[in-house]
Amino acid sequence: MKKHLLSFCFLLMVLSTGCQEQNHNQADGSTEPIIFPKGEKITNDNFTGTAYLHMMIQSESANQTSVGNVIFEPGARTKWHLHPGGQILLATGGVGYYQEKGKPKQILRKGDYIKCPPNIPHWHGASADSAFIQVAITNNQFGPTVWLEEVTDEEYHH
Amino acid sequence: MKKHLLSFCFLLMVLSTGCQEQNHNQADGSTEPIIFPKGEKITNDNFTGTAYLHMMIQSESANQTSVGNVIFEPGARTKWHLHPGGQILLATGGVGYYQEKGKPKQILRKGDYIKCPPNIPHWHGASADSAFIQVAITNNQFGPTVWLEEVTDEEYHH
Repeated sequence: MKKHLLSFCFLLMVLSTGCQEQNHNQADGSTEPIIFPKGEKITNDNFTGTAYLHMMIQSESANQTSVGNVIFEPGARTKWHLHPGGQILLATGGVGYYQEKGKPKQILRKGDYIKCPPNIPHWHGASADSAFIQVAITNNQFGPTVWLEEVTDEEYHH
Repeated sequence: MKKHLLSFCFLLMVLSTGCQEQNHNQADGSTEPIIFPKGEKITNDNFTGTAYLHMMIQSESANQTSVGNVIFEPGARTKWHLHPGGQILLATGGVGYYQEKGKPKQILRKGDYIKCPPNIPHWHGASADSAFIQVAITNNQFGPTVWLEEVTDEEYHH
């Protein structure tokens, strides 16, 4: 019987290790695996709270599409902003928000994606309790991102 | 002792179930979780083997970027093709290949991303032994994809 128990303990250990390995690469406190690199802490004033950016693809004249991976810590968000050529967001982990001016806040979860129409002011970021990971695909054909005012705590929690 | 063994069995079952739940949404035979929908089997003749496409974002005049999730079964691949505005590929699961005309085949794994320059003939697809999942971001500003000849088995395995 003792031998059987030892075998079970070993099997338990192996299974348990297998589970842990699937979570080896996590975003700040969440259990979501990161697919693309976390990048560097954003230090410009276009964001509120702590967020990280890894630029994957830079825009250039031949293809004016830029792609970046953004990780927002809980509560972190962009300022209001707009893109003359529009933007596409792909949610790859955590729980986040997206809001267009004058419309209700939407919740974004892993597997969700959204098209921000050209010239529509909007913001995006993490929910208050969870980090949020997104791939941002920006069309710079008609000009760069225009940054606007901060998303107030009242707007964020509304 | 029997009681302890039963407790261990229960714990084993719980842990094992936990592991399985992380893999609940799999691409054909691989252990990779799918982030975006699998979509429909591709029935046009631009692909060799079995592949699935879920169009996430359609191109339109205001933002001529299209985004699609493609799942290639092992051995499946596109024909040679080119994009007048270029394309960006994000690898989200499995093991795949990318090759530009006249250059060596590159291996793509989860977390890799690649920029296909405008007007350069190339192909992409799964490796022979593993499915491959990619997000394809196409810039249609300068015209639609131009499809070319099939990737031969010799080219594929080279």
